[in-house]
Amino acid sequence: MRTVKLTKESTKDILENLLKRSPNNYGKFESTVAQILDKVKNEGDAALFAYTKEFDKADVTKETIRVTDAEIEEAYAQIDPALLGVIRKALVNIRQYHEKQIQNSWFTSTTDGTMLGQKVTPLNRVGVYVPGGKAVYPSSVLMNIVPAKVAGVPHIVMTTPPGKDGKVCASTLVAAKEAGADEIYKVGGAQAIGALAFGTESIPKVDKIVGPGNIFVALAKKAVYGYVSIDSIAGPSEILVLADETANPHFVAADLLSQAEHDELACAILITTSEEFAKKVDEEVKGFVEVLSRKEIIQKSLDNFGYILIAEDMDEAIEAANEIAPEHMEIVTANPFEDMMKVKNAGAIFIGEYSSEPLGDYFAGPNHVLPTNGTAKFFSALSVDDFIKKSSIVYYSKSALRNIRKDIIQFATSEQLTAHANSIAVRFEDEDKE
Amino acid sequence: MRTVKLTKESTKDILENLLKRSPNNYGKFESTVAQILDKVKNEGDAALFAYTKEFDKADVTKETIRVTDAEIEEAYAQIDPALLGVIRKALVNIRQYHEKQIQNSWFTSTTDGTMLGQKVTPLNRVGVYVPGGKAVYPSSVLMNIVPAKVAGVPHIVMTTPPGKDGKVCASTLVAAKEAGADEIYKVGGAQAIGALAFGTESIPKVDKIVGPGNIFVALAKKAVYGYVSIDSIAGPSEILVLADETANPHFVAADLLSQAEHDELACAILITTSEEFAKKVDEEVKGFVEVLSRKEIIQKSLDNFGYILIAEDMDEAIEAANEIAPEHMEIVTANPFEDMMKVKNAGAIFIGEYSSEPLGDYFAGPNHVLPTNGTAKFFSALSVDDFIKKSSIVYYSKSALRNIRKDIIQFATSEQLTAHANSIAVRFEDEDKE
Repeated sequence: MRTVKLTKESTKDILENLLKRSPNNYGKFESTVAQILDKVKNEGDAALFAYTKEFDKADVTKETIRVTDAEIEEAYAQIDPALLGVIRKALVNIRQYHEKQIQNSWFTSTTDGTMLGQKVTPLNRVGVYVPGGKAVYPSSVLMNIVPAKVAGVPHIVMTTPPGKDGKVCASTLVAAKEAGADEIYKVGGAQAIGALAFGTESIPKVDKIVGPGNIFVALAKKAVYGYVSIDSIAGPSEILVLADETANPHFVAADLLSQAEHDELACAILITTSEEFAKKVDEEVKGFVEVLSRKEIIQKSLDNFGYILIAEDMDEAIEAANEIAPEHMEIVTANPFEDMMKVKNAGAIFIGEYSSEPLGDYFAGPNHVLPTNGTAKFFSALSVDDFIKKSSIVYYSKSALRNIRKDIIQFATSEQLTAHANSIAVRFEDEDKE
Repeated sequence: MRTVKLTKESTKDILENLLKRSPNNYGKFESTVAQILDKVKNEGDAALFAYTKEFDKADVTKETIRVTDAEIEEAYAQIDPALLGVIRKALVNIRQYHEKQIQNSWFTSTTDGTMLGQKVTPLNRVGVYVPGGKAVYPSSVLMNIVPAKVAGVPHIVMTTPPGKDGKVCASTLVAAKEAGADEIYKVGGAQAIGALAFGTESIPKVDKIVGPGNIFVALAKKAVYGYVSIDSIAGPSEILVLADETANPHFVAADLLSQAEHDELACAILITTSEEFAKKVDEEVKGFVEVLSRKEIIQKSLDNFGYILIAEDMDEAIEAANEIAPEHMEIVTANPFEDMMKVKNAGAIFIGEYSSEPLGDYFAGPNHVLPTNGTAKFFSALSVDDFIKKSSIVYYSKSALRNIRKDIIQFATSEQLTAHANSIAVRFEDEDKE
């Protein structure tokens, strides 16, 4: 980790360095992704099977692409019952939190006969992408499916790449079943996104695609945006810890490393008002790296995207944090709640010494699918909001419309939209003739 | 308009025809748009001035690109005071409706020391694109700015193309001022979207870009999605009227034409259970077309994308309407409220004989920026939701974390994320050693 004095310039340099990780800078893969999507659109299942053979080295056919009940039962038999117990406990918390996000339809009305409102409807079909490959994350399965389920989505379709043996990892299947996936298909990468966006013989077209994935998945999601909706485009993980001299450097160092271990593009930043504290954290980090199993990934991530920033005071620290807009922010200061109130941009905010970030990854209830790479300035955590849409409702009685007809006609006429004006005028042409 | 019997096949054919209008099928302009965006990103203001000269035939400089207070005063002097009065009345309704959409931050807590919640923060900078060119729509200015203002966005930046004289239309400026735009710049097209997404010397980078535009604007918005957020990608306007024999064919015909006049790609569909009613509407449409000022546009739009569909019963009609997922839906039936309850996919629903669609375009209060081209299956009207984001809040006390520490450690370990497990374990290493 580099220790740097926090200034406007150093913040700018860091932001530029972090943005190098953005999926927007991987244009060279765009044409490959476009090719894959086109082929899936035109050839359907055949393209899926061919790409799964090519990329995942797995044979998948019309008969085997959909995960069967027998395969799910087999997965339950394989999984550690203690882990199943933990998954079920986590699910209770995740459901409870997301149920608080449910929005109601509403209306207002007036006695002269107007009703205005918003009707909330869940999406009909949602596709959940679950990565396979190097690491398997059943927690991610829960986090993507639960908000859709809580929103009331009737058809939740999951896709995930199979292993070379054509099987899906047992813990992924169990998590999907527990969370409530309705259909599960063995396909990954950009080809899975194409199948969900356009539909194939085996896989139904969905209305929205969510879930993290590698750069091909991210670019494919961006490419199909508009045909279907997508969640925000996920980038590498980030943690930013705001700490003063009251924080425990041992704990803070452990938390920084918990994100650094995700991958070599992950980012861990400490902003502190205490130089002495900064030194202690740096030492603690070095100590931990030696003993952690994912040492090599951690070291690369820290070398590339690890920063210890020394701020003049907490306000300056928070200002920089708002500029960086991290995915995860921990606030470990003398007055963490007060400091939280000043935070504008962060995917999730963890307050105080015992709210370690992994608490949110697995268990507390809030979603761990969070905006990365500065997008917390405009995106939010995955939530029930992502799986509903709202229709405006407008009702006016004859007398209510009569009262404002001339205003509408004038406004429409000023925009030269005479057929708009006409549609109001015809309703009162008898009266207005007199 | 073509009269067609409603079947699964005819619905499918119509959907395919309508999708021809999608911005996703204009790939040939993508490279032009990419070039414009690149040039704006690299050359800033200079590129803006050059493109404004090329496309809008207007001279704009560093000194004149931002609309001045004097120009706004001049616009007020030019505008019809009666229109200003109507704009102000409409603003009251639009504000009132959008204020109902405000979402609160919330939290839940338990007595053993856990707090979970969501903190709502408005976006900091929003860019509103307002088209110029053929038609000028001050109503669109209101609809795009008000929800941002109600959400609490502190910096609202508007861009709109200037005329050849380097001026912006008076009614646009007045509407922008009344609605609460903070800065207004004279630039349009893909170059304006580039300026808002990347920033130039004159125009600040924003967090989100909203507002309708031509195909270049739509493609540019899609291209910058991820750098910034965007609203949904707007397509040509649509109206779908659900009517039975109780409806007034004169009114329904007028309403169909009110959307058909927007442009040649606009779409007007009647679905009815009565063949006789269908015939009457067809006749009424023919009568109206002759006398309306935008006759030529209307005729082309009806020829290409106008349909009268005859359904067996209202349930079949509603099912097809849900498949089409229109921007605007009118329900003019014997039981319009009951039928509304069965509608899943529509941007806005207008209920009953006197809730003519233009009422929503100008005056009632709900937003007229609505999802088009079937995207009402997953997108909503522009709303206050578009201008806020939510940060998850997590607080656990030491004892609350102690109670679940082993569950988290087990879950993290099962995902081989040992540094995640470590960040929980270190907090209890003294106790757990014993």
